[in-house]
This record gives sequence, C-alpha cells and structure tokens, in this order.
Amino acid sequence: MKGTVLYGPRDVRYETLEDPKILKPTDAILRLAATCVCGSDLWPYRGAQPIDRPTPMGHEYVGVVEEVGSAVRSVKKGQFVVGSFATSDNTCPHCHYGYQSSCVNREFMLGAQSPLLRVSNADGTLVATREMPSPEMIPSLLAVSDVLGTGWFAADAANVRPGSTVAVVGDGAVGLLGVLSAKRMGADRIIAMSRHETRTKLAREFGATDIVTERVDEGAARIRELTKGVGADSVLECVGTQESMWQAIRATRPGGYVSYVGVPHGVSLDGAQLFFSHVHLHGGPAPVRRYLPELIDLVLSGQIEPGKVFDLTLPLAEVAEGYRAMDERRAIKTLLTV
Amino acid sequence: MKGTVLYGPRDVRYETLEDPKILKPTDAILRLAATCVCGSDLWPYRGAQPIDRPTPMGHEYVGVVEEVGSAVRSVKKGQFVVGSFATSDNTCPHCHYGYQSSCVNREFMLGAQSPLLRVSNADGTLVATREMPSPEMIPSLLAVSDVLGTGWFAADAANVRPGSTVAVVGDGAVGLLGVLSAKRMGADRIIAMSRHETRTKLAREFGATDIVTERVDEGAARIRELTKGVGADSVLECVGTQESMWQAIRATRPGGYVSYVGVPHGVSLDGAQLFFSHVHLHGGPAPVRRYLPELIDLVLSGQIEPGKVFDLTLPLAEVAEGYRAMDERRAIKTLLTV
Repeated sequence: MKGTVLYGPRDVRYETLEDPKILKPTDAILRLAATCVCGSDLWPYRGAQPIDRPTPMGHEYVGVVEEVGSAVRSVKKGQFVVGSFATSDNTCPHCHYGYQSSCVNREFMLGAQSPLLRVSNADGTLVATREMPSPEMIPSLLAVSDVLGTGWFAADAANVRPGSTVAVVGDGAVGLLGVLSAKRMGADRIIAMSRHETRTKLAREFGATDIVTERVDEGAARIRELTKGVGADSVLECVGTQESMWQAIRATRPGGYVSYVGVPHGVSLDGAQLFFSHVHLHGGPAPVRRYLPELIDLVLSGQIEPGKVFDLTLPLAEVAEGYRAMDERRAIKTLLTV
Repeated sequence: MKGTVLYGPRDVRYETLEDPKILKPTDAILRLAATCVCGSDLWPYRGAQPIDRPTPMGHEYVGVVEEVGSAVRSVKKGQFVVGSFATSDNTCPHCHYGYQSSCVNREFMLGAQSPLLRVSNADGTLVATREMPSPEMIPSLLAVSDVLGTGWFAADAANVRPGSTVAVVGDGAVGLLGVLSAKRMGADRIIAMSRHETRTKLAREFGATDIVTERVDEGAARIRELTKGVGADSVLECVGTQESMWQAIRATRPGGYVSYVGVPHGVSLDGAQLFFSHVHLHGGPAPVRRYLPELIDLVLSGQIEPGKVFDLTLPLAEVAEGYRAMDERRAIKTLLTV
C-alpha cells in the first residue's frame, strides 16, 4: 500500500509502505473508510516536536474490519468500527475508572493516514456500529475517533453543567467541538476565542453565544469583563502553549475549572500563581474510548454533526497539501478519502 | 499591648505594639483566648520568604469580641468567635461559590500572635458559638481557624469519598489533620508519609492505616506498591515544595485527585508531565469560612479533637521558643496562651 510518512519539518511524503500485519493475537487490521490530519500532527510537521526517524503519520480512523487476531472476540471481519487514538484493553484498573488513554497496555496509534491500519488491543479499543453507516455519516464518525472525543473530554473535565458559563481557548477543530460539547452538556453561555471568520461562524453554529477576539492577557480580561468581573465557571484550553494555558487560568473564576487537552509544548506552571488562582485543573490525553458508544449514537441519530469541522477534503495521495492547508490556517481540518 | 514581630530570619521579638483600633465600620476587635504558630510562619522565619520590614506575625485566632465597628451586625461584644486566616465579606460571587479565601474584599490576617486583634470584614469572617466554650475546647476551636480548616479543604479538594484510598504527603499539623479529615469523610485506607515517631503515632490516632517512611520518588513508588500498582485515589499535598508536589502527583492514579494547600515555594510544574499524569489538581488558600459552622459543631459535640496537634504550650511572651521548637521539629505545633 501507499501511506503517509513524515521525514522532517514540512516534509510529508506519500510513499510505498509494507501492508500492516497481525502481530499479536489481540490485533485487528482495518480497511479505512476515511482518515484525516490532526492539529497535533502540526507540532512535528512544524519542527516543534523533533522526530528522530521517518515516522508513519495519522491516528484518527474509521473503517471496516479486514482481519482479526486469534484472541479478538468483540469485533469481526466485515464490521464497521470506530476507534481511538490511544488503544486500551478496557479491563485494567485505569480503564475501569474511565481513563482508557492511560491503560496499562496503551499504545498510541501511528500510521492511520494509510488505507490499511493495524489496531492493537482491538477488543478494548474498537466499537462496532450496528450496521454499515451511510457515506454521509463517515466524516462525523471519523471526528468521534479523536477530535470530538477530545473536545467532549475537555468539556467534561472542565465540569460543564446545565447553566454553566464556559470559555473556549483555541479555535482549532478541538476547540470548535469543545463548543459543541459544552452546548450539548447544557452550558448557558459559551464564549469562543477566535478572530478567524470561518471558525467563528462554525463556533456560532455549534452553540457559541459570544466571540472574543482579544488574546492572552487581554483575552482573559475581556472574559472577566463579560462575566461581570467574576470569570468563567469552565474554561477549555485547546491549544497547549504557555500563553493559552495562562489565558485559560486567568479567565476562570476562583473555584472554577480549567481543562487542557492538547499536549502542552513548552508549558511550565508556576506553583504559587496556580495556587492563588484557586482553579481546578484537569486534562491529559482524552479517554475517547469512554465516550465512544454515546458519541456514536449521537452522530447516528443525527443529533450532532461534528464532521462539519472538515472544510477540506482531499484524496489520500494529496496528504501533503492537506498538511499545508492546515499549517497555513486555510483549512480547519482536512479529511482524506482512501 | 505586647505582641510578636518578625524582624528577619530567626529573629522573632515579643515587644510593645500599639493596641489595634477599629479602622473601618466593618472591623471588630477581639481579645484572644489563645493563638499559635503556623507551619507557614516558618517560611519567613527560615528566610525562605523574604520580608521587607518588621512584620507582625500570626493569623490563627479564637477569642471574645471586645468591640465592633458601626456596620457590624452578626457578632457583638462579649461573644466567643472563631475566624479564618483570610477575611471575607461572605457575600461576593467568589464567597457565594464557597471560595471565601478569594473574596474580592479578602485581607490576609496578620498580628494574631498578640492579645488583641483587629479583624476586617467581621460579619463575613467570624462565626460565634452559642455559648462560651469550656477552656478544654479552646485548642480544638483554635485549630479550626486554620490548620483543621486547611486539612479539611485538602481532603475535600482531593475528592475524598467513602471507600477512597488516600495518601497524605507531609506530617506537619495540616497533614495530620488531613488524615483526620479524610477519615471523617469515609476514606477506607489512609496512607500517611512520615518517619517521625510522635507524628506517626498521632497520624494513626487520627485514622492512618499505613505509614510510608520513604520519600520523594521512593515514597511515590511505595504508594503505588501498596495500591497494587494503581496509585491512590486522592493525595493531599501538605508541604509546598517541588519534591512534595511531584511525589503527590506520582502517587496518584490516572484520573485521581491531588490537592495542595500550602503556598508552593519554588514549585514549577512541567505541563507535559502533568498532562500525562492524568490527575485532577486543585488547591489554594483554604476557604476555611465555608467549613467553620460544620467544624465548630464537630468540635463542640466532641466528635473530633483537632487540638491534639498542639504538643507544646507556652505563654505568649515565650513565642520565640515556640518558633524554635517547630523549626527544629521538636514540636508539631505550638499553642500560645494569652
């Protein structure tokens, strides 16, 4: 098959690779229906996260089971499945507590920007749909496997409740789906931080009630102003930089909740400042598996359409242009047809 | 009157000061029944927190109202009251949410190691007992005003629930009362970290089921070992150093809760490490006012005896020895009779 490999900063190649094979009895091989480029792929793409060798890219996927290992029981050949960017056995204590992305047998997915994909821990990772979904459902089901699951965790970890005042830092696909998630969880007011027209339009469509264009300290000050000096109940930090983290913390009221769901890059939190902010802080790699059944249902019943974050669709062979468009902020998120 | 002033590292003086006066109509003046030395007083005492001028010390207090300002309505002359180290109006939005120690009118108390004390925001800070408490209740009521309130917040902020497995980092008075609080909240297993005999004895008396003597990384590893490799549900960080903070985070299971209640000194948290730890983090100056009515009731009804942390009692004039004994860990906590 041909698949996507990153060789170094801005050097994405679509090249011939070996077909994946079952390596362990708990593996499955999927033939993907679609895949996509993640905001987190841009860190190594931009050189902000060094790679030491050519790296197969991609960790978001939906598709049909092509083959299963001898120990796999819960999915079978021919089923349509949705997975997560982190595989899990879904039986260990951490999984039991709902933190499947810290499973003792966790593996982070690689190589999903390809037609065929090996998924480890298949039983504890993949969730099959009852029937083959219609083609127009594919983008939203694909979104569930990472970007919606992550936005949903952001809202959940920030304790969004009916009536909450919520702010979302970051207007990437995760931030936008954080808006959708907060709306779905009953937030009364959702303040999206963005100065990008396409993204603010989608934020409003997903449920944002206010848009703040100011950044960093000014952005936090503007949110306090919008909340009568109090600060937001819940702030979703969906970027992962030092500036965005402090912006989120400063925009939150004492006793409020800050979630952070993008791998922090160069972030260092001063203990005393955090102490006096009085916020709750929770984040990490989203335990997407915890939410899969519920989110798949919401998509298939037409209650949410997270696939709207894909504003560029390209054939997999043009994956390099998919990265470029996101890097230059011409696209929110690129869907790749296989 | 004579009171306590810190001039510089290890230079505590008991000297003549002006009697405090009502400065604002919302003030009250108390005649203290007792006061004490706080673990946090040791930071400036040891020079770890520089002071730029001679500073009146002390922020823990119980006593009788001597005089109130013209706007004070909820307490009156002659009543016995318990307060908090942070004053609050108890009406602002932050107070409403239970974060009185971030009140918009907050003032941190100073000068309580003296016979007379001015308390600002008297209505929102002081809670009167129904009758004059008996002398043997004084140490435990004094403990409520900071050290128990802080240990209680530590357990609450770390989400201690019936059945929880809890670890407590720090064997000072706050850590020991964190043990008592966790026990009271129904924790099943309470692991206290200490290698000091007097303190481990009291920890066991307060409800500790296990004692871990190892420190830092070894301490965290020992807690994971005691919890079958999982980590504790809740860890109370009651020290405030870089080592204790990471020890607490590493001892917690993914999805578990870390609270921190001592002002962090020189603590810097790496964002990516915190992210992959998957813990909830919450702390700050304890909102003691939130808990005062409940804790006063628990003390007066004889259900808890937090005053046991005072293992040294001195007349106020010997305050300097009270600091020395705590600095040298000869005393857990010094009560000063007035």
